[in-house]
Amino acid sequence: MAIRIGIFGYGNLGKGIECAIKHNPDLELKAVFTRRNPDSVKILTEDVKVCSAEDASKWKDEIDVMILCGGSATDLPVQTPKLAEYFNVVDSFDTHARIPEHFEAVDEAAKKSGHVGMISVGWDPGMFSLNRLYANCILPGGHDYTFWGKGVSQGHSDAIRRIAGVKDARQYTIPVESALEAVRSGKNPELTTREKHTRECFVVAEEGADLKKIEEEIVTMPNYFADYDTTVHFISEEELQRDHAGIPHGGFVIRTGSTGWNDENKHVIEYSLKLDSNPEFTSSVLVAYARAAYRMNKEGQTGCKTVFDVAPAYLSAQDGAELRKHML
Amino acid sequence: MAIRIGIFGYGNLGKGIECAIKHNPDLELKAVFTRRNPDSVKILTEDVKVCSAEDASKWKDEIDVMILCGGSATDLPVQTPKLAEYFNVVDSFDTHARIPEHFEAVDEAAKKSGHVGMISVGWDPGMFSLNRLYANCILPGGHDYTFWGKGVSQGHSDAIRRIAGVKDARQYTIPVESALEAVRSGKNPELTTREKHTRECFVVAEEGADLKKIEEEIVTMPNYFADYDTTVHFISEEELQRDHAGIPHGGFVIRTGSTGWNDENKHVIEYSLKLDSNPEFTSSVLVAYARAAYRMNKEGQTGCKTVFDVAPAYLSAQDGAELRKHML
Repeated sequence: MAIRIGIFGYGNLGKGIECAIKHNPDLELKAVFTRRNPDSVKILTEDVKVCSAEDASKWKDEIDVMILCGGSATDLPVQTPKLAEYFNVVDSFDTHARIPEHFEAVDEAAKKSGHVGMISVGWDPGMFSLNRLYANCILPGGHDYTFWGKGVSQGHSDAIRRIAGVKDARQYTIPVESALEAVRSGKNPELTTREKHTRECFVVAEEGADLKKIEEEIVTMPNYFADYDTTVHFISEEELQRDHAGIPHGGFVIRTGSTGWNDENKHVIEYSLKLDSNPEFTSSVLVAYARAAYRMNKEGQTGCKTVFDVAPAYLSAQDGAELRKHML
Repeated sequence: MAIRIGIFGYGNLGKGIECAIKHNPDLELKAVFTRRNPDSVKILTEDVKVCSAEDASKWKDEIDVMILCGGSATDLPVQTPKLAEYFNVVDSFDTHARIPEHFEAVDEAAKKSGHVGMISVGWDPGMFSLNRLYANCILPGGHDYTFWGKGVSQGHSDAIRRIAGVKDARQYTIPVESALEAVRSGKNPELTTREKHTRECFVVAEEGADLKKIEEEIVTMPNYFADYDTTVHFISEEELQRDHAGIPHGGFVIRTGSTGWNDENKHVIEYSLKLDSNPEFTSSVLVAYARAAYRMNKEGQTGCKTVFDVAPAYLSAQDGAELRKHML
């Protein structure tokens, strides 16, 4: 019998989950929950209900794992512990600094109800974290580097849109190739913010807006742009739609370190992602961890888990013998 | 108290384990076991005993994890199940086709004695397998590619040394850059053996040997070289010592796949290693999994495990809260 999945929140991420379920025949989409009027939400899967978020708890015997697709700022800190009362849950909580408190809240709720609550799943936190961990355990005393991009930063795009005279904008974070090469060479460079990434902005200005002033406001914006080399391109709304509609992202996790009695041998471990769609890739990771959450709970495990706590075999639809035979 | 490690076999791998223990303060080297005369084996660590392999079982209360450093052809199939009667064990068994039977033998012995037997740990099998598994779970229906090198193949170097007139040799496996680029582009190329790797050989010939004949024998050797584009360089013994004394290796695991309702978005996941010393890096992985074996056994787990069965957190000397705070 397929593992029954619920989607809580139907934006880019929720839609990505729906697509990912289609790619995994051992999973079944059972229902989608929304805070909007359910009648106004059209989903892709035929014969699956869209329900009110308020009615989620009524589905507790119909859904094995609820995947939460809300935001980390205000949605998930409330929703994940709440829904863990009724379901195994998986979220992509990505406010790194607040992970410890989120973990505690979900752990308490999930232990009390006897469920597994899997948090901070995706690619960063998620696959990037895993690669940092594995590489740190293999090469203690080495150096870690994480680069992001080339990809769209939603937060930075939003910041530009808030400037007066800006109609729409898309911001790309771009890793500096020479910095990547210096890291890969094993030189262990100390890199400033400016040396690691550049920022490229595509801006649609309102008619008659002062372009010079908009550009100045962008490149000097504290936290977002002031510490980076930023280039600004003004383009038409049509160009933005045509050339910048996607949500690509990716990045690199690199660890360098040495082995040998006197540290005489150098090593470079590198993991990289090149993603056409950030939310769809994140969704694909979430869905694999939903499978793991279900299985771990079946085996009697409860409480909050992160990617660090999940033995990789739980993620696969294949059994241990098949994995050892074909993938080890 | 430190986790007490035994090393069984003191070649390149055993020496690598000894160096890796030095880099991990929570581990302690307790004894080294050898089939040679123990008095003839000098190790790097002061005040640690070198003992006869036959006496290993006498150390069963002194050693928490025995790391086996023998070969996969004849040593490990016998030694790992045997030593699992007395210790938690970790090996780097790398004959892919025989992993299922090795698993069964170690599983039976380890379950009977109440130990954990961790097999096929290293980078391939090992870290490469993990990356194949994670990537397969995230992108079902995608394509897998593994490239090896640039690095020294011991088996191919040995094959050259067996040719009449050859005094010494070193063989490098080199991935074809254009094939790597084609894979990364997401084109899902079908690649022949010849298209994926080239082989480069540095040969020291005996005086008066027929170089033309040696070269011909190398490039036409079935299984080893016939299916590859192979170049042969004749060099002096001094040059071999000076330029080819290291044992570098590495490689790439790449998976490409798509997401979206109609597979409209492409993704590339890539993991790569660039290693100055193949045995020392393998040793560093083994040591991290020795830590995991000890902990999993402490928690009551027994039987044979592979990297697929180990939750990543077990590999780290840091506890869960620290990992979530600093590495997630």
